[in-house]
Amino acid sequence: LAGLTSFGAAQAADPLPSWNDGETKQAIISFVEKTTKEGASDFVPPEQRIATFDNDGNLWAEKPIYFQLLYVIDKVKELAPQHPEWKQQEPFASILNGDPKKALEGGKPALMQLVAATHSGMTGEEFQQSVKKWLATARHPETSKPYTEMIYQPMLELLSYLRANGYKTFIVSGGGIDFLRAFAETTYGIPPEQVVGSSLKAKYEMRGDKPAIVKLPEVDLIDDKAGKPVGIYQNIGRRPIFASGNSDGDFEMLQWTTAGRGPRFGLLLHHTDAEREWSYDRKSHVGQLNKALDVASKEGWTVVDMKNDWKVIFPWGDRQGTPRQ
Amino acid sequence: LAGLTSFGAAQAADPLPSWNDGETKQAIISFVEKTTKEGASDFVPPEQRIATFDNDGNLWAEKPIYFQLLYVIDKVKELAPQHPEWKQQEPFASILNGDPKKALEGGKPALMQLVAATHSGMTGEEFQQSVKKWLATARHPETSKPYTEMIYQPMLELLSYLRANGYKTFIVSGGGIDFLRAFAETTYGIPPEQVVGSSLKAKYEMRGDKPAIVKLPEVDLIDDKAGKPVGIYQNIGRRPIFASGNSDGDFEMLQWTTAGRGPRFGLLLHHTDAEREWSYDRKSHVGQLNKALDVASKEGWTVVDMKNDWKVIFPWGDRQGTPRQ
Ligand SMILES: [Ca+2]
Ligand SMILES: [Ca+2]
Repeated sequence: LAGLTSFGAAQAADPLPSWNDGETKQAIISFVEKTTKEGASDFVPPEQRIATFDNDGNLWAEKPIYFQLLYVIDKVKELAPQHPEWKQQEPFASILNGDPKKALEGGKPALMQLVAATHSGMTGEEFQQSVKKWLATARHPETSKPYTEMIYQPMLELLSYLRANGYKTFIVSGGGIDFLRAFAETTYGIPPEQVVGSSLKAKYEMRGDKPAIVKLPEVDLIDDKAGKPVGIYQNIGRRPIFASGNSDGDFEMLQWTTAGRGPRFGLLLHHTDAEREWSYDRKSHVGQLNKALDVASKEGWTVVDMKNDWKVIFPWGDRQGTPRQ
Repeated sequence: LAGLTSFGAAQAADPLPSWNDGETKQAIISFVEKTTKEGASDFVPPEQRIATFDNDGNLWAEKPIYFQLLYVIDKVKELAPQHPEWKQQEPFASILNGDPKKALEGGKPALMQLVAATHSGMTGEEFQQSVKKWLATARHPETSKPYTEMIYQPMLELLSYLRANGYKTFIVSGGGIDFLRAFAETTYGIPPEQVVGSSLKAKYEMRGDKPAIVKLPEVDLIDDKAGKPVGIYQNIGRRPIFASGNSDGDFEMLQWTTAGRGPRFGLLLHHTDAEREWSYDRKSHVGQLNKALDVASKEGWTVVDMKNDWKVIFPWGDRQGTPRQ
């Protein structure tokens, strides 16, 4: 019985079992311990323990392309019968011809047309239902897993570990806020009110005798790069003490977070594992990591080397099909 | 000892001691009990227990005028030496001549000029410091109490009661979000991330070698009337099941809240006590309550008759100077 108890204690002593022992894991644990130890000089009161996490390529994967774009593509196909004009009209025509890359050559205006056609004109509740329905059946083109299983096991443990230590965890993503809210609570344990993302404007109107919030085809906030600290300030109202991201889109969020007084932690995930996940950084179109990688050491940010720091990638295994050990 | 224990239990049995027994108090308690009793048909899972509260005239008083306007007036006077041109320039000139009523005759453009001059151009952190400093010394013109003591004791009890039952309490106010955030946590126990309010746009920039969020003189959201459900949707991401307000500015918030499926509660505070607080409704410039009062009964909203439903007004007593019983 005594042996059983001490085995239990040893298990409980590792809050991050999918992280390999080493400097990265140790840096995270030291930070959490020093900020939560009452009386310590680095103690942070619970209400100030705000931790923000980027989503794409940070909590879930982002290859071959942002999953939200795959939703847009599927949705354009689903809506096409109601829009015969799309056959002759870019960027829709290229999507329907199976050439999304060409569709996206139209840059931001093309993307905005696609977002407007698939993300607006319905109520917020209808949009979220549509996303939930898609997530229930769509599969990742390479692993054939649901997108909500393309999530990183070590990050799930980190979210739980922070919450167990009185941290409030937020998503701060360039992705659409309503898209994220459709799965963040069940997938990550992060409730809608703790999601910050890019957003469209919305209006309140009566639909018959029922009031509704209707999404408009007009951008409210692009929650990326310098938009991230702005989104955090407007939605959360205070500076995080812990921020985690994986690309140059997170540069300003990490910079603002770690420039504050007192203990601060910046975590930068570097995709280095071509076998178990994907390997990409400076030249990638999706999740480019260049400038932030250059300054990480000078800024005191902790860089996660996915290949060496992570024992497990996805909850079920890795990209090669090797099941979780 | 047994007597002591049952006395303790009896005390604990009244979660709203400053509310007189009657239909209003009973309606609140019945709602909270049925939504939190596991297995009951009206049970609501904790994560959906979202309660939103208007602030001015609902959590704290709003007479003779919105307290945030009194901050604006004091701030204009404080800043005047740096702006000699204000002596000849409306709406500033009238403020400096002690005639704020005339200054506000300029309507929305005048108000926006005053807000821009006093709420923008500094960092969010600097603005909040300024508000905190003001709240520490400014006094209500009639009661001579700090504004943060012009709060309603029965509403403090309601906030605590809801939170003790797993509700997450939010402020949803037409007032400025950063102004509210400067005192909501210490005064109401509502953290910055649970405050929704009117907001200015903001930008991220370097000030020397330090990054900062700077408030811009441009409106982002007017969180009033139809702006309230929009602000709730964008910031909280789901429909409340409990909403509380006191004026026509809360009409759409209550309408949207109570039109949802399942158990819903709309609470409308009617200022009926000219002696202990103020009495006003349909013709008041501040906190006008007209349309919402007309439909309250049809919509099933519970109207608080302040005079009859509240045993105590402020934590320290009432407007007459009668100390709290
Ligand atoms: Ca990312
Ligand atoms: Ca009000």
